[in-house]
Amino acid sequence: MSVEVTRLPSGLRIVSESRPQLQTVAVGMWVDIGARHEPLKLNGITHCLEHMLFKGTKRRSARDIASEIESVGGQMNAYTSRDNTTYYARVMKDDLPLAFDVLADIILNSQCDDSELVREKEVILQEIGQALDTPDDIVFDHLQDAAFRDQAIGRSILGTAESVRSFSSADLRSYLTTNYTASNIVVSAVGNLEHKDLVALAEEKLAGLKNGEPSKASGARFTGGDIREKRELEQVHVTAAWPGVSFQDDNYYAMQVYSTILGGGMSSRLFQEVRENRGLAYSVYSFTSSHQDVGMLGIYAGTGPEMAEGMMPVIMGEMEALTKGPTEEEFKIAVAQLKSGLVMALEATTSRMEQMGRQMLVFDRLIPIEEMISNVEAVTPDDVARTASQVLAESDIAMAIVGGGDLDRITFS
Amino acid sequence: MSVEVTRLPSGLRIVSESRPQLQTVAVGMWVDIGARHEPLKLNGITHCLEHMLFKGTKRRSARDIASEIESVGGQMNAYTSRDNTTYYARVMKDDLPLAFDVLADIILNSQCDDSELVREKEVILQEIGQALDTPDDIVFDHLQDAAFRDQAIGRSILGTAESVRSFSSADLRSYLTTNYTASNIVVSAVGNLEHKDLVALAEEKLAGLKNGEPSKASGARFTGGDIREKRELEQVHVTAAWPGVSFQDDNYYAMQVYSTILGGGMSSRLFQEVRENRGLAYSVYSFTSSHQDVGMLGIYAGTGPEMAEGMMPVIMGEMEALTKGPTEEEFKIAVAQLKSGLVMALEATTSRMEQMGRQMLVFDRLIPIEEMISNVEAVTPDDVARTASQVLAESDIAMAIVGGGDLDRITFS
Repeated sequence: MSVEVTRLPSGLRIVSESRPQLQTVAVGMWVDIGARHEPLKLNGITHCLEHMLFKGTKRRSARDIASEIESVGGQMNAYTSRDNTTYYARVMKDDLPLAFDVLADIILNSQCDDSELVREKEVILQEIGQALDTPDDIVFDHLQDAAFRDQAIGRSILGTAESVRSFSSADLRSYLTTNYTASNIVVSAVGNLEHKDLVALAEEKLAGLKNGEPSKASGARFTGGDIREKRELEQVHVTAAWPGVSFQDDNYYAMQVYSTILGGGMSSRLFQEVRENRGLAYSVYSFTSSHQDVGMLGIYAGTGPEMAEGMMPVIMGEMEALTKGPTEEEFKIAVAQLKSGLVMALEATTSRMEQMGRQMLVFDRLIPIEEMISNVEAVTPDDVARTASQVLAESDIAMAIVGGGDLDRITFS
Repeated sequence: MSVEVTRLPSGLRIVSESRPQLQTVAVGMWVDIGARHEPLKLNGITHCLEHMLFKGTKRRSARDIASEIESVGGQMNAYTSRDNTTYYARVMKDDLPLAFDVLADIILNSQCDDSELVREKEVILQEIGQALDTPDDIVFDHLQDAAFRDQAIGRSILGTAESVRSFSSADLRSYLTTNYTASNIVVSAVGNLEHKDLVALAEEKLAGLKNGEPSKASGARFTGGDIREKRELEQVHVTAAWPGVSFQDDNYYAMQVYSTILGGGMSSRLFQEVRENRGLAYSVYSFTSSHQDVGMLGIYAGTGPEMAEGMMPVIMGEMEALTKGPTEEEFKIAVAQLKSGLVMALEATTSRMEQMGRQMLVFDRLIPIEEMISNVEAVTPDDVARTASQVLAESDIAMAIVGGGDLDRITFS
């Protein structure tokens, strides 16, 4: 496996990892624009634009875009996050030029046609409806909102029915031109390929990318908040979050070890105490999320309405107890899990392609696996205890609950 | 990559694919027992037993089971389907003996302790609650029920709150002894390993497996039915199914090509007409499911209550139209998608391990990739037209709907 990075004079970055033993290639174009860059009135436009890029270019109809890659047995898709937008394809190795041509075409030449937009808004309204019907999805949208009140980073990626209905095709074209610039884009590919061929494709097919300013998001701030939505459900879906770490934070790896011990696997404290010892939940875990400037440490548990009130003190008890530091065994387990997780993520082509694309956008360099592993190994049990205390010392807590029963009785005490 | 199969005198089967370039191994133990083998009173016991196998053996506590594989950075999990039960782990290559020892121990020596069972039933009741809260999960349980009324294969894998509460630890131990026999089990592993080492592990660690009768399920019959559940939701989740093909059916590959053309990808008829041309749904697709003796061809679409009535005739129109046969282009696309899907599935270690385990249980042999590809290539456009007509000629239709609006207005006409 050989990793290479090329920077074109335009600012476009191209990264690849060659794996000659494979039959396939995963290729993605990463755009440094996400929901957190949106002004309030345009909430959801990044995601709407992602949809519209499949609806026709100067050379290709929507149907052509769908069928060209599928006709060689490939798959193509896209997704929008709070930080960035990704278009990607997985194809047999000889079809990389075709996949690249289609991806480059939709990024450069999409028409954002009026009549297509009218129909695609309906599709997005259905997508919003589907998300609203999924309580253990929607509770995380509420948690993000509670954590970052009145900020773009706290809003839904899909936008609202109202905001989506308001977009014009001129809005979309302007958003595309402003943000899909050479310096905002990273091409990442993993599989049976040669780096120089990938660079040649980028030079040829993405020559039309304009220069422009790097996209800028307003700095985000963890505010905390409390959002509860009563629904007639079997379960109550409980989430809470505390200020966590940005990707740049010195404490980033200590936070990963802490979260792994707290609620990262079957041997974690939350799983053992909430599920195994007390049978309070089927699904209970902690998680971290990170952005360039902020992050969160969160917990989720789904339980019966009659048990929710009693569950929060159990969770808080485990968080308190961990401020005294991890046991030797659980510390060892967490470090081993994180290290092998890094190695295992390398083996799947699509997840490795995603990791490389994201690292270029966040750090403007690829982080060698050895560096990540030594960062994990540098964390000490004292770092974990300190991190556990820092999390609980924060007075700004976010909480979001969706479900049945008396939601007001669920507290942190 | 080299594939090997070994059959021990006990009836235990061991399959592996060696991939020396990897750092990891995925190993699974496949048991030929699933929800479809359950008598009505024991509905859910296969899944309950799968949970109880993590709750302690003669040598290991529940906590030991969770932490031993995690302490070397591995992951371990299990799932129950209508046809079989799978326990699997993914570990770094040197940890295969440890992973094998833990998996073999839980399969041979689980205690199914009373007090653990009391707690684990609570966890399963929470899991049932979580499934009930997810409309686009639960609609598929209803569809299976409507397709196979009053048969084990039509019932929920999780069981009901009532059936789960009724299980005793004696029930579980008896179910374990009867069904977890040598001839009912396949060991499958893919990764950096040598087959002879895997066989040696099986001979040593699984020597305690008893002989027994192969598990037998009653023959299933597609009955058709209609289950509608009104809920206050943003969407109405609509599913329908027709008799499909078993794994053994001569028409198996023609059905795959047909379903791919009908609703398998972005260029499929349902996606193009329902989503792209009419904006009626975000999520719309067809699917097949197969068992040893029966199967189904199904469709799913999620849409707004006000649009559901008009959507079914659009879907039925596409199904009718396809009885005239596919276009040359869409036929070519479907064949290419299926062929590359087979190759891509080979590349991920866990999915390849799963494929090999499942093939041994279904066919008692591994199907070479070349044979699968030539089966796909043997399908003709006429086969697709004939399959499309056969599906619609069936008078037994299953339908399941969960959602808002006037559900009675949704029909097939």
